[in-house]
Order: sequence, then C-alpha cells, then structure tokens
Amino acid sequence: MQPICWKNRKLTLLDQRLLPAREAWVTCETPAAVAAAIRDMVVRGAPAIGIAAAFGLALSALSGRNPEADAGELLASRPTAVNLKWAVDRMLRVWRDSGSPDQMEREAVAILEEDVALNRKIGAFGADLFDRPVTLLTHCNAGALATGGYGTALGVVRALHERGLVRHVFADETRPYLQGARLTAFELADAGIPHSVITDNAAGHFMSRGDIDAVIVGADRIARNGDTANKIGTLMVAICAQRYGIPFYVAAP
Amino acid sequence: MQPICWKNRKLTLLDQRLLPAREAWVTCETPAAVAAAIRDMVVRGAPAIGIAAAFGLALSALSGRNPEADAGELLASRPTAVNLKWAVDRMLRVWRDSGSPDQMEREAVAILEEDVALNRKIGAFGADLFDRPVTLLTHCNAGALATGGYGTALGVVRALHERGLVRHVFADETRPYLQGARLTAFELADAGIPHSVITDNAAGHFMSRGDIDAVIVGADRIARNGDTANKIGTLMVAICAQRYGIPFYVAAP
Repeated sequence: MQPICWKNRKLTLLDQRLLPAREAWVTCETPAAVAAAIRDMVVRGAPAIGIAAAFGLALSALSGRNPEADAGELLASRPTAVNLKWAVDRMLRVWRDSGSPDQMEREAVAILEEDVALNRKIGAFGADLFDRPVTLLTHCNAGALATGGYGTALGVVRALHERGLVRHVFADETRPYLQGARLTAFELADAGIPHSVITDNAAGHFMSRGDIDAVIVGADRIARNGDTANKIGTLMVAICAQRYGIPFYVAAP
Repeated sequence: MQPICWKNRKLTLLDQRLLPAREAWVTCETPAAVAAAIRDMVVRGAPAIGIAAAFGLALSALSGRNPEADAGELLASRPTAVNLKWAVDRMLRVWRDSGSPDQMEREAVAILEEDVALNRKIGAFGADLFDRPVTLLTHCNAGALATGGYGTALGVVRALHERGLVRHVFADETRPYLQGARLTAFELADAGIPHSVITDNAAGHFMSRGDIDAVIVGADRIARNGDTANKIGTLMVAICAQRYGIPFYVAAP
C-alpha cells in the first residue's frame, strides 16, 4: 500500500478523504496542486506530507518554475508536520547546489525511497521489543498511508504480524477526523491483521481490564528532550497507559 | 426542560434520539411501550429511566394488568441503570401493599417530583463547592434530559450559573452516541450558559493547559466504596484529572 506515486513526472496521491469507501487518486502537476492536496488532507501523515512536498518542488523545477519561490506555499500548507520543513529544506539545498530539474526529481524519489526503508527498519527494531504474541493499541494513523509506505507505528505492527506475534490491535477511531476508523482499520484489514476499532474514550477501559500489552503511535514531531507532538488524544492515551503501567512507544524516523 | 411528562394518565417522553435537530414526543400507554422507549433510547439517563419505568408500572396497574408480571420486561430494558431496579422495587412494594392503581399513579408522580427536588439540592450543594467563576468539564449528559428535570451534574452547573459563577463549560461530545454534543450542548444553549463541545480525546489537552478548574459528571451507579459506573470515557477523564490535580466530582442522588 503506497499513497504517493511518481510516474511520468506526475504525482498521484491516494485521496485519503474518501477511504475506506472509495479508492480514488488525485493527480498533481504543479506545486500549487500539491500544496492544496496537503491543505485539503488528500494526503496526511507527517512523513507523507514531507514526501509530497518534495515532489511539489520537483514539479516546480521540472516545469521551469523557481522552487525557491514555490517553497512558501508548500511550507504553509501544514505547519505542524516537521517533515514538511525538513523535506523542503533538503530539496532547496539540492536546487541551490545543482539548479538541475533532473537532480530535483531524483532527490524527491530518494526521499520517498528512504522513507520506506526507514519504516522497514523502524518495524524491525520495534518488533524486537516483543517476544510473545501481544495486543496493541494505536491512535490515529501512522501506517503506510501516513508515510511513503509500510508505516511507522503500523510498520512495527506489520513487522510483528510477519513474525506471527500480533494477537489483536485496538485502533482508536480518532475523532474528529476518524483517521483510525477510516485509515488504520483499512490498512489492518488489507494486511489481514485482527483488529477492532474503538471509540477514543474506550481505550482506558481496555487498559484497565489488562487487555492492552503496549501502546504504539506515530509522531508529528519529537523534541530533543523527548516531548512528542501527535494527534489530539495521544496525551490522554499516554497518561492512562502510565496509570496502568503499560509501555507506550512512539515510532518515528 | 422536562423530558418526562405525565398527563391524563399517559406518559409522554421527549425523543432524545432526535435532539437537537427536532423536538418530538413519544406517547406511551403500556408498560411494553415504556420498556421499548428505554431500550431504544427515546429516554436515557439513569434517573430518567427509573422515573419512566415507574410510570410504566403505573400504566400497568391503571390498565388492569399485573405490575408484578410487567416488571421483568422493564427491568431488562436497561440493566446498567441502578435507578431502574430501585424504582421498580419501590413501585412493586406499593402494589403489594395497596393493590391500588391510583396509589401506583401517585407513587410514580412522587418519584418524578422527588427526583427534581433532589437535583435542585444536588445543584445547591454542588454550587457551594465554588466561590469564584469557574470553567467546568462534563462528560455525557447528566442534565435535565437525564433526570426528571434540572439535572445532577448539570444541576450543579445550573445552580452555579444562577449565582453567576460559570465562566465556561466544556462538554465532551461523548462518543459513540454523542450525548454531550447533542443533549448537553442543547441544554446549555437553552439555559444561556457559555460552552464549547470538544472531542472526548481533547479533554486532556485543555486540562494540561490549565483551562479546566473542575470536572463534574453524573453516574449510572455508585458502589458503597465510592466506585462509580458511568458512561464510557469517564475513566479516562478521571485519570487525566488526577494527573493534573483537577478536582473531579460525581453528582448523583
């Protein structure tokens, strides 16, 4: 499952607003179209946003525009996702060094491919945390759909599932936008991983019953001191996990 | 605002499934109709359910049926609400002692009137907890709509508002059934009390910012040791309130 495709110098994005009911793709041929797709949540998830923005700047260079002039609109399209600024900065460095549209295209593809490779490593490292079948809780969507592919928090779940160590996954529905109910459940079903969608406010109940072995979430950004910014509700899940002595993991590159 | 009306020996219930979009009333002339109304959530809230069931048994006696035979269906209509069993037991005692349909009607009316009086007392006692303007958080609906009138947790809010001490109320939307977004917000708007509806998972955020002075909720039942059963999500709110040192009050008769 890969939400971001680059082919024939066009960017196609899986329209995540329509999932799971419908799989439709949005084609972006300009940096403005990419910025709109980020703003309108066609694409979401911090890593995926960064990758999309990188292709936005590649499109800028390939069409003879000035990536430095187009960076602003992309940066403003979702200020919370740290990957956005990181990817834009990286692309602008390449532009300043090379001035080459081909080089810009290669760099964006590299950012996408590195992300998937990083996620697979996160998955393997995360899966090593567990040596017996576990029931996990996750919040929002930190899966293939939030990244270049495979996923961060769901990458760990995927890797664990490959090892036969996932008993069950509880997916918080994640109000108000329902990324858990719509996207995480879609990915888990697609991967054949047993799961239940629960209301966000039910997570504490399952923790109190001893049903959750660990919590694993993604992150929009992580500060040097470990402070983590993530989807609304992550704080309450973390506080309740602490209350019940349940390990809480943040999976991010 | 009173969700349960008894007039001309008929019970009319405000259909809470349609609020806030529409105010429609359901008329019940048999105990089976009352049981169905409880089961289908026309009426909800522990105190309101108990009152409705009492009128269900009054209807049984008034129509020449046997309240003892009709009690079972009412008791099964919502096993979690302690008031249901309490009200049914009280009505059956009156039936056994008097065998009088008129007495049954008077007893049901007394249960309704006592509930409203109790709520006003809860409101006054609860309001005494605060001596300056406060911002409160509530979960689900423990208002006039959940009771005979006035409300338990919202009774405290109403009494505080009468004293000019409500700065703001945050109402958890209360998934999955949205009693907070639909019913609590409706009551607060009706009473002119400043409020915001928030997603359940945002309560911790506002607590962490110091925006919440106290939490106040109702209860389905309270054990002798203080353990409290209430709507899903109450546990997470309580744990987060404890984490941030925010007083957490349960208002119930």
